[in-house]
Amino acid sequence: MKIKDVGEFGLIDKIRKKTKLYSKDVIVGLGDDTAVLKFDAKNYLIFTTDALAQNVHFSLGYFTQKQIGMKAIEQNVSDIAAMGGLPIYAVVSLSLPKNTDVKIFDGIINGINKKCKRYRIDFVGGNLSSSKEIIVNIAMLGFVEKKYLTLRSKAKIGDLIFCSGNVGSSSIGLELLKRKINGKSIKKHLEPKSRLDLARKLVKIGINSMIDISDGIASEIRHICRESNVGAIIYADKIPISNATVIDSKKINKNPLDFALYGGEDFELVFTANKNKLKQLKKHDAKVIGEIVDKKYGIRLVKDGKSLKLKSGFDHFS
Amino acid sequence: MKIKDVGEFGLIDKIRKKTKLYSKDVIVGLGDDTAVLKFDAKNYLIFTTDALAQNVHFSLGYFTQKQIGMKAIEQNVSDIAAMGGLPIYAVVSLSLPKNTDVKIFDGIINGINKKCKRYRIDFVGGNLSSSKEIIVNIAMLGFVEKKYLTLRSKAKIGDLIFCSGNVGSSSIGLELLKRKINGKSIKKHLEPKSRLDLARKLVKIGINSMIDISDGIASEIRHICRESNVGAIIYADKIPISNATVIDSKKINKNPLDFALYGGEDFELVFTANKNKLKQLKKHDAKVIGEIVDKKYGIRLVKDGKSLKLKSGFDHFS
Repeated sequence: MKIKDVGEFGLIDKIRKKTKLYSKDVIVGLGDDTAVLKFDAKNYLIFTTDALAQNVHFSLGYFTQKQIGMKAIEQNVSDIAAMGGLPIYAVVSLSLPKNTDVKIFDGIINGINKKCKRYRIDFVGGNLSSSKEIIVNIAMLGFVEKKYLTLRSKAKIGDLIFCSGNVGSSSIGLELLKRKINGKSIKKHLEPKSRLDLARKLVKIGINSMIDISDGIASEIRHICRESNVGAIIYADKIPISNATVIDSKKINKNPLDFALYGGEDFELVFTANKNKLKQLKKHDAKVIGEIVDKKYGIRLVKDGKSLKLKSGFDHFS
Repeated sequence: MKIKDVGEFGLIDKIRKKTKLYSKDVIVGLGDDTAVLKFDAKNYLIFTTDALAQNVHFSLGYFTQKQIGMKAIEQNVSDIAAMGGLPIYAVVSLSLPKNTDVKIFDGIINGINKKCKRYRIDFVGGNLSSSKEIIVNIAMLGFVEKKYLTLRSKAKIGDLIFCSGNVGSSSIGLELLKRKINGKSIKKHLEPKSRLDLARKLVKIGINSMIDISDGIASEIRHICRESNVGAIIYADKIPISNATVIDSKKINKNPLDFALYGGEDFELVFTANKNKLKQLKKHDAKVIGEIVDKKYGIRLVKDGKSLKLKSGFDHFS
């Protein structure tokens, strides 16, 4: 059997079943955006890793070198944002073909440093090795105050489900790039921005669960439901999609909703909160896209007056 | 210009020149085996990352899947050992082709877990993504008591240079594997073991500087001299090489000394200490291989009564 037959969720399950913990200092291990570890009386340490691989996550055909470095940092910051925390340190493992032009190397490092400056992250170490294709693997450490830690697993029945901003743009941008068609969505793919600043405001208001959108809303809702042992109803017409994304999707005769649900890499946030937080959360442009229900109802998508079973989201291996 | 023309040292220099730090909590940033970060009154946090890439660091032709996972952990533990610390947490970023057999995935995870159990490391998170070739990238966190922290940069003129055990075996083992010749060195390549336990004893005795042997003694001595701003004299006939390595190198008409100096992946330790520690250090089978001298003498290799300039060690990009 091949890993594409097992799928990403199946592989993660396998790892969780095989893996034991030895210390009592692990607050959250496998299964959230980052690991959460004991630190001091007020704070937890958060620890995460994410890879950006050539011809999987980027192509030198349309990414500048600097954009590669920038995105590699943003995607890790986005994971830390989703826990309610702040990034502090990064180590970078860079795998490059020997005949890579020095300009590409310089550009990637410049992109990493640009974003480290933006977030005041200390780039403290790393590793260089040769490879067939470029892979930028970053591990990041951050902190979160205990009171602000926000997990995937704490969604409660009755919670409203929110989305922090427009989705689908990054993946429609990728489609345009592949087809050499212009459009505003392209920049969202090449230069995505994490919602770190917003996430910090949200956790101070008080929300129950949160995840960042790396693999599309469908996949992220599934993670929240699975970890929180609940069901969800998503209203298709409430999912925020920008006019630019609608225009761009028309250029290639696609439904923008499919990109919002199954596309990924938007780095917006999906989160759930008690209804009594609605007023405060709306001030930050968060959009209600559904609600958390009992597990027995499953995960449903209400579209054109019909309630459908929500299909699985993007899977890295299928 | 290509990165192979700049070389690994040149690329690291470029990164150091481009990179700024924002926090006062970084004790050691780029340029040692791991980063060293503020933690509490007694301890530092140590943070490192290392990749194991298919057809660069391993081949499925002669590594079992389990050995891949095991080696990926060992090489990170070896970096933490070289700081005098103890590993605690790991996150694993696994890049795999979609058509990878599930048995390979299972084997790698089993190897990782086997070594995590050996060292009581908590495997707390990770990332899965698709790629052309397998890459196991691990980031590891550990602790070191402030009094035991041992850097590359603290070698002192007059220090003796020690090597913790036999070297050259791993790289001669690789040569045998490539040529399909049997020999005892092969296991040293497939199943290297870090010297964590020994490193902890050494730092308690009191040594001045330390590094682990990933790229051969020549490269490691160069790192110590560069960071400590000193020179070194290495005695070729003092470098510990096992009988098995001598026998195996004869099989392919090679000089085992070349593998010891330029081969790498032995995961033994090179360290320097004041002469007054000699008696205590010898109890742990550490061998004196040279001494630290003033920078003006450069890095010399004394061989057959002649003093030669020590050639550079293994470079990942040249």
